[in-house]
Amino acid sequence: MQKTSFADMHCSIGRTLEVVGQWWSPLIVRDVYLGLHRFDDIAGNLGISRNLLAKRLEDLVAAGILERRRYQDRPPRHEYHLAEAGRELVPVLMAMMAWGDRWQTPAGGPPVRLVHEACGHEFTPRVACSECGEPVTADTVDVLPGPGAANGPGTWLLGGPLPRDRDDSR
Amino acid sequence: MQKTSFADMHCSIGRTLEVVGQWWSPLIVRDVYLGLHRFDDIAGNLGISRNLLAKRLEDLVAAGILERRRYQDRPPRHEYHLAEAGRELVPVLMAMMAWGDRWQTPAGGPPVRLVHEACGHEFTPRVACSECGEPVTADTVDVLPGPGAANGPGTWLLGGPLPRDRDDSR
Repeated sequence: MQKTSFADMHCSIGRTLEVVGQWWSPLIVRDVYLGLHRFDDIAGNLGISRNLLAKRLEDLVAAGILERRRYQDRPPRHEYHLAEAGRELVPVLMAMMAWGDRWQTPAGGPPVRLVHEACGHEFTPRVACSECGEPVTADTVDVLPGPGAANGPGTWLLGGPLPRDRDDSR
Repeated sequence: MQKTSFADMHCSIGRTLEVVGQWWSPLIVRDVYLGLHRFDDIAGNLGISRNLLAKRLEDLVAAGILERRRYQDRPPRHEYHLAEAGRELVPVLMAMMAWGDRWQTPAGGPPVRLVHEACGHEFTPRVACSECGEPVTADTVDVLPGPGAANGPGTWLLGGPLPRDRDDSR
């Protein structure tokens, strides 16, 4: 079944999902970040079918998230590396990881620890405000229509005042 | 085609994807956060098939991300609200949004602006270090095996020293 495309949605979450939200894609980006650059290594780690991996890599390269670099000429062989957009996706993956550590904790605890080289401490990734640096939560943010707001499939809400209420607060 | 499950993967990104990484699921969480609580409203906004929406909502409730609350008895009617795990997912969605604003910018610019009530400023969500508060980037983090590290499909890397090199740095 063909998935509905989110490519034309006036929503940056939808547009992000369109290029990196396919099943397996975030794990492929994770693997490349962790140092697996060759097709066979990624296929072996993930246990993904080679056809599907080839398609996902092609899409990630087309989206500018991965780069394909030739490392051998005869016969031609390529490696995959993070492009700039892919590098900037890594902290988003870390935020997903932190959520999973907390809410879908694997047996034994978090599989991975992160150390921030800048301060030298083991840390938990948090989504924070660019202006004051404090963590942001669902309850402390107002969502307003931006310059690219438009009514359309998936974004009818943006046509008027956003209806978000606070009755979820506890 | 049945998707490979990531439920048993010793990876908190994989486990997060398992419960919220299905196509449409993040947008359903977004809609509930923005104030759409009723089946018909979410279906109408997303243009998703009712069968698929029912399945996604059921899965999100089972995963503890959404709660189903009865708001009318005769006939019985329910609304969907964010459970605590769902509320904590919201900042992760904001981080995805910021990536999409930057790398998959919709026509006209960002569709949504976020204002941090705590400081009063319009802001960009950033993934930051819990210890020093500074933003984290792909280049400034060391990834080490944690207490739940285990070899297995998708996580063979965790069996030994992580091979991540720095040749991607630019």
